[in-house]
Amino acid sequence: MAENNIDAYIIPNSDPHIGEYISEHWRINRWLTGFTGSACTVVVTESFAGLWTDSRYFVQAEKQLSDSGFDLMKSMPSKKKEPVEWLVANLKPGDRIGLDGRIFSIGSLRKLEGLLKDQNISFDTGCDLISELWSDRPTVSGSPVFDHPVIFCGKERSVKIEEVRSEMNRLSVDYHLLTSPDDIMWLLNIRGNDVTYSPLLISFLMISEKQILFFVENEKIPESLVQEFKRTELVLMPYEEVVSTISDLPEGSTILIDPSATSVTLYNSICKKLRITEDISIPARLKAVKNRTEIENIGKVMIKDGVALTKFFFWFEHTLGKIVLTELSLSDKILEFRSMQKDFRGPSFSMITAFNEHAALPHYSPAPDTDAEIGECGILLVDSGGQYLGGTTDITRTISIGSPGVRQKNDFTLVLKGHISLACAKFPLGTRGYQLDLLARKSLWEHGLNYGHGTGHGVGCFLNVHEGPQNISVADNKTIIGSGMLISNEPAIYREGQYGIRTENLIICYEDEETEFGQFMKFETVSLCYIDKALIDKSLLDEKEISWFNSYHQDVFDKLSPFLTDAEKNWLKEKTEPL
Amino acid sequence: MAENNIDAYIIPNSDPHIGEYISEHWRINRWLTGFTGSACTVVVTESFAGLWTDSRYFVQAEKQLSDSGFDLMKSMPSKKKEPVEWLVANLKPGDRIGLDGRIFSIGSLRKLEGLLKDQNISFDTGCDLISELWSDRPTVSGSPVFDHPVIFCGKERSVKIEEVRSEMNRLSVDYHLLTSPDDIMWLLNIRGNDVTYSPLLISFLMISEKQILFFVENEKIPESLVQEFKRTELVLMPYEEVVSTISDLPEGSTILIDPSATSVTLYNSICKKLRITEDISIPARLKAVKNRTEIENIGKVMIKDGVALTKFFFWFEHTLGKIVLTELSLSDKILEFRSMQKDFRGPSFSMITAFNEHAALPHYSPAPDTDAEIGECGILLVDSGGQYLGGTTDITRTISIGSPGVRQKNDFTLVLKGHISLACAKFPLGTRGYQLDLLARKSLWEHGLNYGHGTGHGVGCFLNVHEGPQNISVADNKTIIGSGMLISNEPAIYREGQYGIRTENLIICYEDEETEFGQFMKFETVSLCYIDKALIDKSLLDEKEISWFNSYHQDVFDKLSPFLTDAEKNWLKEKTEPL
Repeated sequence: MAENNIDAYIIPNSDPHIGEYISEHWRINRWLTGFTGSACTVVVTESFAGLWTDSRYFVQAEKQLSDSGFDLMKSMPSKKKEPVEWLVANLKPGDRIGLDGRIFSIGSLRKLEGLLKDQNISFDTGCDLISELWSDRPTVSGSPVFDHPVIFCGKERSVKIEEVRSEMNRLSVDYHLLTSPDDIMWLLNIRGNDVTYSPLLISFLMISEKQILFFVENEKIPESLVQEFKRTELVLMPYEEVVSTISDLPEGSTILIDPSATSVTLYNSICKKLRITEDISIPARLKAVKNRTEIENIGKVMIKDGVALTKFFFWFEHTLGKIVLTELSLSDKILEFRSMQKDFRGPSFSMITAFNEHAALPHYSPAPDTDAEIGECGILLVDSGGQYLGGTTDITRTISIGSPGVRQKNDFTLVLKGHISLACAKFPLGTRGYQLDLLARKSLWEHGLNYGHGTGHGVGCFLNVHEGPQNISVADNKTIIGSGMLISNEPAIYREGQYGIRTENLIICYEDEETEFGQFMKFETVSLCYIDKALIDKSLLDEKEISWFNSYHQDVFDKLSPFLTDAEKNWLKEKTEPL
Repeated sequence: MAENNIDAYIIPNSDPHIGEYISEHWRINRWLTGFTGSACTVVVTESFAGLWTDSRYFVQAEKQLSDSGFDLMKSMPSKKKEPVEWLVANLKPGDRIGLDGRIFSIGSLRKLEGLLKDQNISFDTGCDLISELWSDRPTVSGSPVFDHPVIFCGKERSVKIEEVRSEMNRLSVDYHLLTSPDDIMWLLNIRGNDVTYSPLLISFLMISEKQILFFVENEKIPESLVQEFKRTELVLMPYEEVVSTISDLPEGSTILIDPSATSVTLYNSICKKLRITEDISIPARLKAVKNRTEIENIGKVMIKDGVALTKFFFWFEHTLGKIVLTELSLSDKILEFRSMQKDFRGPSFSMITAFNEHAALPHYSPAPDTDAEIGECGILLVDSGGQYLGGTTDITRTISIGSPGVRQKNDFTLVLKGHISLACAKFPLGTRGYQLDLLARKSLWEHGLNYGHGTGHGVGCFLNVHEGPQNISVADNKTIIGSGMLISNEPAIYREGQYGIRTENLIICYEDEETEFGQFMKFETVSLCYIDKALIDKSLLDEKEISWFNSYHQDVFDKLSPFLTDAEKNWLKEKTEPL
């Protein structure tokens, strides 16, 4: 930092694609601090080194950062306790901030500059202090990509390309730069193996009326795909050449980029005489709406996933008390059951198997140093999902072990009421997720309860388990919840130091009736697994809720039982008996 | 236009204060076109003259514009049918738009420029074509202002001034320009008579750490107030000097303005070397939160207003069928009953008394050419409000005449369910209006019904009946609904060509319990008038709803009956009997 004349160095947990799913090569903060969580920012000055992370990681970070030389800085956006506020308070006028513009989005840089604009702070956005220091740095992995056939994705790549071009035409843009690998996977009907939890190939893509330039390590593309790609006039380009290519685009043309997914380096390389249109990418909007083939496949995948989970819970109930079970051993077992399902390709995120007070941490993931034994009495929360060729799953169930207490049943039932209310929602076309969020919270609010995370996120199709642009949350998001969108429904409650409860299914939006007041929409629940009746206080449910619950359980039994053993089937029959 | 080299001239319905309540002097579009509605924009080109207004005025505008030479252009924001879209489609590259920057906000101009930016259109923002043509133009009225004493407003002007200065300090701004007269009335504890429906004095005000410059026609300030103002070191300045004063502010200082309430002329007069901070005004945020004295006075005003309305409905029920009653005669009668109340100062908006299909037009106001006779059977919607020294009211009741139909009762009860749901809301501190809006709509949506306007607007205290910044609506609005805010609760349903139903009360936000999940908030209903039981289908209400309804009716009877005649009291007793 001294050599580079830098007073503060910022390291986000990010990569050149500004995504949630980043390769080992870019896990700088883990190498630097020992912290393994997925959300963090490091700031280093002459006299200070700190790592900011959010409440779900406080316990874990405290352990992992002890003796690291890095202070744990508790990030609390609502209290304005984030790195930028620290910088505002601690930098002196004239100070210089260094950052690696390759892994910092232009959107984030603008925010940072905006908040520091009165402080006379300068920026060096081409500052990579890490590469020289990190000698045993992992290379970006090199396994080949594979075709994701139309029987799964429902639409030829040539058709998708035409759809994107037609949108570009409508928006009057000549070039569209795709920086998010999942957008590119969707567009080209391919999948890769470069990161954990999502089948992504690290790559960039530039599309224009006549051309498609695909920036990728060429050796990852098998010959069969090279031939396929030729039919769409796609040109393979070395990954590194994206910057030089962008700076060579013809003057006066218009380029569409997403500022929240485009690095400072890429943004600055755009020829100054180009006009820049900023918006979310076109594939991001298109892939959020699942087509009929995708929806059919999602239905099949949900059966597989539900069968795996049911087999797990059957095994669990019959094994508990006989051998020692821990959170980690349950995670292994769930993975084992999912792995038996056809077309399973791995977990879709870091599995949560959390017992009692661990379940009160919304994003707890068991690790060897936190692993807890499952006792005879308490609450077990299991949040897990799988990547299948036909789709991506994400489901949470909370079950009781022993006899649940009155407050646990009360909490569980109020969460369930919210879950059912959202599942049964009927709303006019044009409604946004922030309008629907209250459905999941109303029963909790009435009792002075709440949860601190969103109610629902979009889900990809054999892609990222967290996918935009739609969500269901208290924050404003202008995306309209439209037909074909796949979203999670996951209200919850967390009792610090005691237990946590969450019930999560995936739901798909469909058209409902059209009236003189317009087109109305509805959801259909697609995840399939019983919900633990032992935790329900039936007196808190009204007739409509009980009817939804019973019919959901009937559906679970009907769809899963053909794939279960007799013992499992009889057990599930009981679990899904009407309330 | 030819002389000024203008290809299109735009006239908003606005004044130099960019407000909803404008004086006769600025009703350019009414003079020009004959249209008397409050929302409209005129565009004139060489070959076209059109007036845009929204759906509530379509019928009225069609009549009033016939033979005017102006085409009625139906404004539909959701379908992008607004003046700007027309301009985008009809102007040629190189064309020049003229507008009077004194009555056009800088915010609106930016939007217009943004949407036309690819079209090579230039602007003349100092183009007043009207003054020369309009020979018999009314002058701005000149009646004096009066003191609004602390027994009504609850806080000395010197204290409010200190609060504003303390906020300016926190935001690091040296100057704060107030352009909205209601902000100024609130700050100085005065009221005026310059516009209809709101007690405003047309004025500007500039506040700094040391100074307050009050730009106003001096003769409107009585000597007693001049003396009072001296104690706060307020300086009276000629109204016209606001522009020259702003352009003389010292270089390098910071000024806070609201771009949506600051005219292009004022904005452009700000010295180029000033730093501009843009946000809603500080008084706008402060006055939205009513203080204890204001809330006490609101309670008293609600009794007066409720007594007037009750007396009206009693009179109506006993007069109908005996003499001819029309919508306009009912409006007159309501005004008569309100006028008997102490401290009443006039209606707070253009009263709506609408029978049957007229009630299906959400903002219909009876006029001589539309006035309808009240028949023996149907639905009467009455939306009215008053300005009292102690507060501003806004209340809607829908009553049935004769026997209501099944669908009318169904509609009325679903609207009532939404009304009750919002009235009973409990929500964590930090919640925005867009999160609560669904409460009022859910019952309607479940039946494929909806209404096209917001659910609630802020209300002033002896000030504008529509007051920001908070509201309850589907649109995002970052304002948090906080303790002391006064808001309307007005779900509705409109059956085109048949009838309309709306039930509106004002509600005040208060703190509810604090739990381990944070501070919770609630509403209390303050408007007082019976709700017509004849239109309720009790089988659609649950116990909680019935209980709210009965206890509201008990409250109405208890608070209003001391001010009624025995006949009225007995009648109200029946109207408010438990369901």
